[in-house]
Amino acid sequence: MSGRKGSRMGKVVIGLDFGTNSCRSLVVDAASGRELASHVFPYPSGRAGVITDPADPNVARQDPADYLLAIEATIRQGLKKAGAARRGFSADDVIGIGVDTTGSSPMPLDADGQALCFTKKFRNNPAAMVWLWKDHSGFEEAAQVTALAAKLRPHYLAKIGGTYSSEWWWSKILHCKNTAPDVFAAAASWAEICDWIPAVLTGELSPARMKRGICAAGHKAMFNEQWGGLPDRDFLEALSPGLGALRGRLYSEALPAEQAAGRISPAWARKLGLPDGVVIAVGAFDAHMGAVGAGIAEGTLVKILGTSTCDIMVAPRRRELKDIPGVCGIVDGSVMSGYYGIEAGQSAVGDIFLWFIQNLVPDSFGKTQDERFRSLQRAAARLAPGESGLLALDWNNGNRTVLVDVRLSGLLLGQTLHTKPHEIYRALVEATAFGALAIIDRIEEYGVAIREVVNCGGLAAKNPLLLQIYADVTGRPMNISRSEQTPALGAAMFAAVAAGEKAGGHATIERARDAMTRPGKKFLPIERNHAVYRKLYALYRQLHDGFGTPSWQGGMFNVMKDLLAIRDEVRRGKTCSSS
Amino acid sequence: MSGRKGSRMGKVVIGLDFGTNSCRSLVVDAASGRELASHVFPYPSGRAGVITDPADPNVARQDPADYLLAIEATIRQGLKKAGAARRGFSADDVIGIGVDTTGSSPMPLDADGQALCFTKKFRNNPAAMVWLWKDHSGFEEAAQVTALAAKLRPHYLAKIGGTYSSEWWWSKILHCKNTAPDVFAAAASWAEICDWIPAVLTGELSPARMKRGICAAGHKAMFNEQWGGLPDRDFLEALSPGLGALRGRLYSEALPAEQAAGRISPAWARKLGLPDGVVIAVGAFDAHMGAVGAGIAEGTLVKILGTSTCDIMVAPRRRELKDIPGVCGIVDGSVMSGYYGIEAGQSAVGDIFLWFIQNLVPDSFGKTQDERFRSLQRAAARLAPGESGLLALDWNNGNRTVLVDVRLSGLLLGQTLHTKPHEIYRALVEATAFGALAIIDRIEEYGVAIREVVNCGGLAAKNPLLLQIYADVTGRPMNISRSEQTPALGAAMFAAVAAGEKAGGHATIERARDAMTRPGKKFLPIERNHAVYRKLYALYRQLHDGFGTPSWQGGMFNVMKDLLAIRDEVRRGKTCSSS
Repeated sequence: MSGRKGSRMGKVVIGLDFGTNSCRSLVVDAASGRELASHVFPYPSGRAGVITDPADPNVARQDPADYLLAIEATIRQGLKKAGAARRGFSADDVIGIGVDTTGSSPMPLDADGQALCFTKKFRNNPAAMVWLWKDHSGFEEAAQVTALAAKLRPHYLAKIGGTYSSEWWWSKILHCKNTAPDVFAAAASWAEICDWIPAVLTGELSPARMKRGICAAGHKAMFNEQWGGLPDRDFLEALSPGLGALRGRLYSEALPAEQAAGRISPAWARKLGLPDGVVIAVGAFDAHMGAVGAGIAEGTLVKILGTSTCDIMVAPRRRELKDIPGVCGIVDGSVMSGYYGIEAGQSAVGDIFLWFIQNLVPDSFGKTQDERFRSLQRAAARLAPGESGLLALDWNNGNRTVLVDVRLSGLLLGQTLHTKPHEIYRALVEATAFGALAIIDRIEEYGVAIREVVNCGGLAAKNPLLLQIYADVTGRPMNISRSEQTPALGAAMFAAVAAGEKAGGHATIERARDAMTRPGKKFLPIERNHAVYRKLYALYRQLHDGFGTPSWQGGMFNVMKDLLAIRDEVRRGKTCSSS
Repeated sequence: MSGRKGSRMGKVVIGLDFGTNSCRSLVVDAASGRELASHVFPYPSGRAGVITDPADPNVARQDPADYLLAIEATIRQGLKKAGAARRGFSADDVIGIGVDTTGSSPMPLDADGQALCFTKKFRNNPAAMVWLWKDHSGFEEAAQVTALAAKLRPHYLAKIGGTYSSEWWWSKILHCKNTAPDVFAAAASWAEICDWIPAVLTGELSPARMKRGICAAGHKAMFNEQWGGLPDRDFLEALSPGLGALRGRLYSEALPAEQAAGRISPAWARKLGLPDGVVIAVGAFDAHMGAVGAGIAEGTLVKILGTSTCDIMVAPRRRELKDIPGVCGIVDGSVMSGYYGIEAGQSAVGDIFLWFIQNLVPDSFGKTQDERFRSLQRAAARLAPGESGLLALDWNNGNRTVLVDVRLSGLLLGQTLHTKPHEIYRALVEATAFGALAIIDRIEEYGVAIREVVNCGGLAAKNPLLLQIYADVTGRPMNISRSEQTPALGAAMFAAVAAGEKAGGHATIERARDAMTRPGKKFLPIERNHAVYRKLYALYRQLHDGFGTPSWQGGMFNVMKDLLAIRDEVRRGKTCSSS
């Protein structure tokens, strides 16, 4: 509260959240976490920022040039808005910038650490761009990684729930090697965009010196200090001759996001209108930083509720944590230093409701999708748990946690000749709640207690019925994060820690959390409802285990798989006979 | 072809088909089966002929006065139309009338055999009217009959698939005794309307002399000559003290419909403009006479496809026929003399499609129900078997055959985020086809071969996709009956046999069939489709046995039942707390 110019606002941090279709800046008061201004920049390239391939629906790429435009636009506009909205605000008070991004979204680099697609030779070559998280073109390579690790390095798999994903780092790099060998050969190194963007801002792009975050490294690249960092050279070479040599051109150290990647380069400081010395924090993924922005703590599960969910927990490092079968990832420090970060998730949540509303709800519920959604909500809210007699499985897009099986499908049971759309809608919401509880149960079985849940993401804000059902099903309080921009807020909080207490930030991420986040609306479980849901959950588990686990006595394990096999065979036959 | 007046048309028979909402006459050339004219009379009473009770949705009654109006209107108008349409037609050539009705639809009689509700005391008393087939108010009494028979007379149950239905004779009479004891006490006797209407026409109404048909007696009243007719007095007395005394006021003989109940009374002959001596055949149920009108023969299953199905077969009496578990009824002579009549059925077929179209199909498929139905058909017809990856159980209204369990419910499995309404529609059609095959399989296991199927009813006429799927699933030809009025045609055929060959009719029902029916359109199984459906049927059976049979290893038997129990408990709780 000194008289210095601009000091009336206290120090300021900026979170930069790089999403799938746009980038957002959030300008935040470092002391209180108050959100001063925000600006969103939609990526100009491709279709809403995503470059696809008509010949292969699995392809999803991104042009990193969009990120450079986004940094400039979002920070400049964010600062401008903050200045307009807040008396005494000055860009000179900015002490740090944090970066969160989607992931695993790796891209190949040239020898200087620039994007390979910036070079003349590879300009407009999608293989030289960012391989966006939802690019699944490496699904065969993923199966290869899983199979080889199961044979040679089972401990690699134990930390990632047993199955390596087509969305992840090595699947993508290996698919690039197999299908675009010129790009693979020209790549001096590779980086996750959550590591590359901070490096851009600091100017420290050289691959050998580029700071890498533990979040991406641990969750997606099987980096673990237990086995000396990345998977060993022999393993990579066995995976694909020539891949082993890449290992030495990657990284051997991975840092938590509380650390600084460096200070802003003079060029970027000028371009953005920021003072010299602004600290750039090590980057991490949106879900992980979002969990921190939502106020994660021991015993709190943070659920990012959207088309699918990402579930993040922390377990203090002082206690031993066993591998948890079926849970996507356990990485020391990936969320906060001193804690194991635990990542799980449901393959489809909002996507299931959207599918239902778009395909199976008549116009008597409303003409637009929004009207239909609101009518369904109203009607579904009037039902008591168990009243419809319906029960569903939430597997329309497979099961990511705890079964880790994409060859599963949806199930609806209990319909009569009187069943109405809003009853099915409620059953689908309940199914996702049961899926959430199955994850909680699995994690608790391995000694990590979950006492409450903080929800963020689009669905949390607009679906109070869903949150009450989640509270009633899980028997746990459901909070909504106060901020609607938890990833950007989390990124800003890491910036505050990386800048440090002396500079006007915070000493630890726990202190930043206590100062910069506060609880939002809370839904408490209603015991009468929970009692009914306990019975329904037992039936859900019967179906879940019956159709989802081979060892279960039920002997239904084959049904969904056989149906998918028949479907695939018929579709192949139809394609062949029509071509 | 003599020169006698009116003989140019040959002899004529009339079928009278008493449905749920209306009665139809069909005037038929006795030699060729050619349909000369038809007239429909909607019942004037109640709502479309059905008298309901706002306080009890299980109640469905009918006023027999409607039948008297219907006989006069339909026969007079039918004859008038035939005269107008056909040169040389004369009512004097009518040699017989056959009657088919819904059932079990019993009503109490006074000492003269008149409807008890025609007496002053019981006029407008629904308990004294016809207890229509779909009246389920006796569901508790039905359970009582099943339980007592299982304990004391298991052989009674063996012929009716193991479970006595709330739709049947004794459930209704017992419920009348329990809830309208004055009506029960005043009833000199009871009659199925398929027996009462022929008695009206002959004037032989006296309960002691009224001719009763074996179809209703055997299928609904547990009448069997093996145990001396109706259930014995001790059993009835054990069921309810005082019920035993009724037995002696009912009947001890039951006749096949080839026999004459008598000749038309002079009063009715005058009223209808018919010659003296017209033979009135013994009555039977619509499904059974419809099966004959559809051309039933050994090895042919007749399927009456509507909201639900009724499946009728015959097995020659010369071979021993074991009881078939889960099959609704086996009665000697109930369809044709010399054959066991076998009755089975699916609880919901058209009703499932209607439920889906009315509730879960968006307007993009069409504004009206008909438009939606046609778009679904077109889109579903373009799918190959197995292509959608979906599989359903057809239990939205329980399972009548072979599980005989109303505490079952629907199931849909295999949906993804891309599943479309027409795919679900096709899966529902396939589910009913699998249900049909489960019935065929069960009957064949007990030695009755089924080589082809003749389909009649509304769905058969308007749903070629369904018939092709049924052919492909069952691997058997699916025929459509040529006549759209098979029950009335069957009734006319029985009239021709009851009148006899000398009078210009036929000597046996087989001869009448060969002369008066001919095959309609036929759908042949396509081997490539059948091969896929064999695989899908194996999966259907896995679900069918897993959820439908307690002894199956699957251990899913409880799921649907527990859900229904929870539902009922919640609904009871909601009613109590809101009242």
